[in-house]
Amino acid sequence: ANTILSGFGTTIFTVMSALATRHGAINLGQGFPDQDGPEDIRDVAARVLMDGPNQYPPMMGMLELRQAVADHNHRFYGIAVNPETDILVTSGATEALADCLLGLINPGDEVVLFEPLYDCYLPLVLRAGGVPKFVRLDPPNWEIREDRLREAFSERTKLVLLNTPMNPTGKVFTVEELQRIAHYVQESNAYAVCDEVYEHLVFGEARHVPLATLPGMGNRTVRIGSAGKTFSLTGWKVGYITGCTDLIGQIAKAHQFVTFTTSPALQLGVAYGLNKGDEFYTDLRQSLEGKRDRLKTGLEAIGFKTADCDGTYFINADIRSIGFEGTDEEFCRLITTEAGVAAVPVSAFYVGEGEEKHFVRFCFCKQDAVLDQAVQRLSEFF
Amino acid sequence: ANTILSGFGTTIFTVMSALATRHGAINLGQGFPDQDGPEDIRDVAARVLMDGPNQYPPMMGMLELRQAVADHNHRFYGIAVNPETDILVTSGATEALADCLLGLINPGDEVVLFEPLYDCYLPLVLRAGGVPKFVRLDPPNWEIREDRLREAFSERTKLVLLNTPMNPTGKVFTVEELQRIAHYVQESNAYAVCDEVYEHLVFGEARHVPLATLPGMGNRTVRIGSAGKTFSLTGWKVGYITGCTDLIGQIAKAHQFVTFTTSPALQLGVAYGLNKGDEFYTDLRQSLEGKRDRLKTGLEAIGFKTADCDGTYFINADIRSIGFEGTDEEFCRLITTEAGVAAVPVSAFYVGEGEEKHFVRFCFCKQDAVLDQAVQRLSEFF
Ligand SMILES: CSCCC(=O)C(=O)O
Ligand SMILES: CSCCC(=O)C(=O)O
Repeated sequence: ANTILSGFGTTIFTVMSALATRHGAINLGQGFPDQDGPEDIRDVAARVLMDGPNQYPPMMGMLELRQAVADHNHRFYGIAVNPETDILVTSGATEALADCLLGLINPGDEVVLFEPLYDCYLPLVLRAGGVPKFVRLDPPNWEIREDRLREAFSERTKLVLLNTPMNPTGKVFTVEELQRIAHYVQESNAYAVCDEVYEHLVFGEARHVPLATLPGMGNRTVRIGSAGKTFSLTGWKVGYITGCTDLIGQIAKAHQFVTFTTSPALQLGVAYGLNKGDEFYTDLRQSLEGKRDRLKTGLEAIGFKTADCDGTYFINADIRSIGFEGTDEEFCRLITTEAGVAAVPVSAFYVGEGEEKHFVRFCFCKQDAVLDQAVQRLSEFF
Repeated sequence: ANTILSGFGTTIFTVMSALATRHGAINLGQGFPDQDGPEDIRDVAARVLMDGPNQYPPMMGMLELRQAVADHNHRFYGIAVNPETDILVTSGATEALADCLLGLINPGDEVVLFEPLYDCYLPLVLRAGGVPKFVRLDPPNWEIREDRLREAFSERTKLVLLNTPMNPTGKVFTVEELQRIAHYVQESNAYAVCDEVYEHLVFGEARHVPLATLPGMGNRTVRIGSAGKTFSLTGWKVGYITGCTDLIGQIAKAHQFVTFTTSPALQLGVAYGLNKGDEFYTDLRQSLEGKRDRLKTGLEAIGFKTADCDGTYFINADIRSIGFEGTDEEFCRLITTEAGVAAVPVSAFYVGEGEEKHFVRFCFCKQDAVLDQAVQRLSEFF
């Protein structure tokens, strides 16, 4: 076995979902909606399955989808790119990350990561030969300490991997924070790979700003989007990377040997979806914001203190606030098996020592009745 | 850029398909059928898009498909495996290869490869940190020289990557050849990763025998299958790996971070397809065999000598036989731009020096009228 990968367990999402199934628990662990995205998008894809094409599409993606991604970048962020050369379609955002890291990193290159971090980041960085440098964020508001940021970057930094809106914290990086990150990226003459799969799931006053739109960052940054998250079709596994021609070319060198391409039907469905009017995106945001509020209110009524959540599918609760004295992992096993509600321990998103063991991540992209039932089960149990 | 991957150009299939499109050439280069596979399979998948599930399926694949792959292994090869633990579904055979190599190889491990070799093998082996050891096969019948085989294996051999039926040669490894390979794999205490995507495209007296079925090989071998090739749906990108629990577990450690999973709709369509009766597989084989004969006859009538073709989508022509004195690459550019027929130079499947430059690979999985027209164009041109 490869000794880097064999050192990692089965992903926490699979572990908790399996436990949830075994115990008939409501699954607020793994992040996926319990209602499928727009019927018209699915209908477009279904018609392509019947009418074709069903053979290999171009390695970079179907031009219809690359055009739609380019238009989407322009419409929402004023980013202008050439669909022929500056966009790469992938089999989901996970493949997009694998392609970026395998395509950009040389063994020994340093990679800056913010902790807590999504669970595939570190294994992919290490398997690509990268040397991780962690910037730990401080709860409950997940601020970036300047000294940690400064120490993480060096002349050996190849790239920073940034996730905003951020899983598992629900943090949306502010322009001021992005400026500080951009400063160090430029000082180190490095790149930024931005996992922005939750770009449309941002609430209240918060705004998603791509790092790519900051001065001097356009040619150093690639951003990753996900149809699964934007259209509530997490099983489709269609992702897209936008960046300058040079970086996309380097990343495509990995993609062509990792999956080569992605189903034309799903690509054309997503192309159709991205072209939806602004009200689709507004409705999505408002619907999720309502669910966040619903779960937050329910958890707070039980006595949980919750952390700020400006975006994503996830809200974090501090388990100390109800007097629980064990770890977040013990808490998650307990509520899954005994209360019938599954959640994910935030400590699973840490690598180093001294990690936070008091936060539990609840997923709120579920039907209102399901959220209410979960809150009721927890309320009865505690 | 990663210096290993940046050393590789854009895949030959993309290059030749683009050239074919630009010149309105009949594309006998990249290997894909020009008629989509069974409507009932596509209909099953389309119905899942409309009725769900459309969210993340299990990381190892949907149980329906894993069961169908297990049954398929048993029906065709007498291989008995546990669908829960011994099968992994991937986003195409290319991802399957990436998972196997990233999941099994440690930097410095030696990997035995047969040359000519499919174009993603070497970049994936190198990117995984493997050290390639080549066994060059001799045309026109692509025999394995014993001394080369013996020299390629050592105590540092981690695995052999075997492609049978073999692209681009059309060779189907005989039991005697497989026994010789199995001997060295066992002597080196190594593994075998078998790319068997053309398992059902085998002609005449030839039989596909999985290396996994040889004595002592069951626990050392994983075999990769492809719905794209078996169901003439190359765009679907659904692959599957079968092997012992331990190896599949190691490979899944890579898969969970490379794509994580694959569309439920496509998985359920493929599960339905694999359960088709024997006549489906017989018809497929006979249809392709007829097309091979059709193209072979046409090429020979022009004066080309063709190499044996016992399987795959591909037949090779020796360009010296019609008095062409340039390289295979020059030949392919010439016929694409001037005769309106695209093909792929076999030298693109070589790494080392002194490669064969006289063979051109033609793909015959096209409608009869298309094959006839291609032959006519070539015939008029020469
Ligand atoms: C790939 S399964 C994990 C889904 C997800 O993004 C999460 O739960 O954080
Ligand atoms: C991934 S595109 C290449 C298709 C193919 O297998 C071939 O033409 O050899």
